[in-house]
Amino acid sequence: MCFQDYFPVWDKLNPHQQNRILENLTFRRVEKGTILHNGSMDCTGLLLVKSGQLRTYILSDEGREITLYRLFDRDMCLFSASCMMRSIQFEVTIEAEKPSELWIIPTETYQSMMAESAPVANYTNELMASRFSEVMWLMEQIMWKSLDKRVASFLLEESSIEGTRQLNITHETIANHLGSHREVITRMLRYFQSEGMVKLSRGMVTILNEAKLEELRD
Amino acid sequence: MCFQDYFPVWDKLNPHQQNRILENLTFRRVEKGTILHNGSMDCTGLLLVKSGQLRTYILSDEGREITLYRLFDRDMCLFSASCMMRSIQFEVTIEAEKPSELWIIPTETYQSMMAESAPVANYTNELMASRFSEVMWLMEQIMWKSLDKRVASFLLEESSIEGTRQLNITHETIANHLGSHREVITRMLRYFQSEGMVKLSRGMVTILNEAKLEELRD
Repeated sequence: MCFQDYFPVWDKLNPHQQNRILENLTFRRVEKGTILHNGSMDCTGLLLVKSGQLRTYILSDEGREITLYRLFDRDMCLFSASCMMRSIQFEVTIEAEKPSELWIIPTETYQSMMAESAPVANYTNELMASRFSEVMWLMEQIMWKSLDKRVASFLLEESSIEGTRQLNITHETIANHLGSHREVITRMLRYFQSEGMVKLSRGMVTILNEAKLEELRD
Repeated sequence: MCFQDYFPVWDKLNPHQQNRILENLTFRRVEKGTILHNGSMDCTGLLLVKSGQLRTYILSDEGREITLYRLFDRDMCLFSASCMMRSIQFEVTIEAEKPSELWIIPTETYQSMMAESAPVANYTNELMASRFSEVMWLMEQIMWKSLDKRVASFLLEESSIEGTRQLNITHETIANHLGSHREVITRMLRYFQSEGMVKLSRGMVTILNEAKLEELRD
C-alpha cells in the first residue's frame, strides 16, 4: 500500500500534479508522544496518516488541554498546514498518541494544487467540514452535558478505540482530554467506582459495567 | 449596489456561471426576529447579506441557546446550505437580529459552481475557515474564561456593534447568547452594577465604566 492508495483524490489529479506531489512528499515514522505541530512551529505541511493515532488539542495559557479530535489511518490533518488559509485564526497542537507512520505534503505543494484543482479544493472543504462537525459536537458536549456524562462518554470511546475494557490511563490524562482538573476527575471516577461502573487501580481504569456507563452517557 | 458588487468571486466566474447564478437568485427583505434557517428546515440556500444583521446559534434539547457568530453586510452564510456538504454534521439556527436584506443562492446552483470552479471552492474554504475560527474562539472563551469575563466581553461587543453605551437588552437575552441562565446573568450584572461598571434599568443595561469592563475582560 503506497501513498496513491491513501490519498483520496489521487485519481482526480493530472499526471503533472501527481508527479509534483510525489516529488515533494516525505515519509516519517514517529514515536508515541512526538509533537508533530504546534502554534509556535512554522507551517508543518499536511499530514496523511498511514498508521497510528494522532491527537489534536488546544492549550490554555495555564497549560490546560482539551482534545478536539483524533486522527486514525487514512485521515488527513489540515491544521498542521493552517498557514495555507489566512482565515484559519486559531492554533492547535498535534501529537502522536501512538507510534505512527505518516506522509507530509508540503504546504506550498498542496496549496498550489488546491488553487488550480476544484476536486482538491472541494476535498479540502469536506475535510474542514468534518473537523468543524467534530468541534461542534464537542462544544455541545461542553455546553449542555454535565461532566459525569462527558467522563462516561470518554471512557466508552477510549475502550472502543483500544478494543479493551482495561484502560491504561491516568486521571491527569483524562482531565487533559476533557479540559478539566485531575482532582475533579478523580472525584468523578471514585463515584463511578462506588456505583460499580469502573474499578480503579494504579494508572488504570477498568470498565466493569458498560451498559450503566452507556445509560449515563445518553 | 447590486449582487455583482457583493459576491466576492464574481469576477472569477465565466459568463455562463454568472448567468446561471443571476437566473436562480432571489432577494428577500425580512423583519427582525425572522428565523431564516433551522435544523428542521430543508436546505435554505446560501445567504448573502446586503444589509442588516443575522445571528447564528445552536440550541440544546432544553431550549438553551448559545450564539456562535453574527453576520453583517457582505457576509455570506454557508450553514443555511449545510446539505451542500455531507461532512457538515451539525445544525444551527439563523435569525435576523435586525431588519435585513439578503440574497438567497439556491444550494444546487452554488454546489454546481463549486464543483467546477476552483476559485469558488477555495472561497468557500476560506468562508468555512473563518466561521471555524470564530467557533474556536468561542470554545476557548467557554473553556478557559470565567463567566464574568464573558459577560464583560459580550457587553463591550454589543456596545461596539450598536454604537451606543445604552443597550436595549434583557438578562434573558444575554443568557441566551452565552448559553447561561437568566438568574446567573442577573446576579453577575448586579455585581457589575455594585462595582460601578454598569447601571441596570428595565430592559436596559448602560455601560458606565468601559475601561473597567475592558480590564475585567482581558
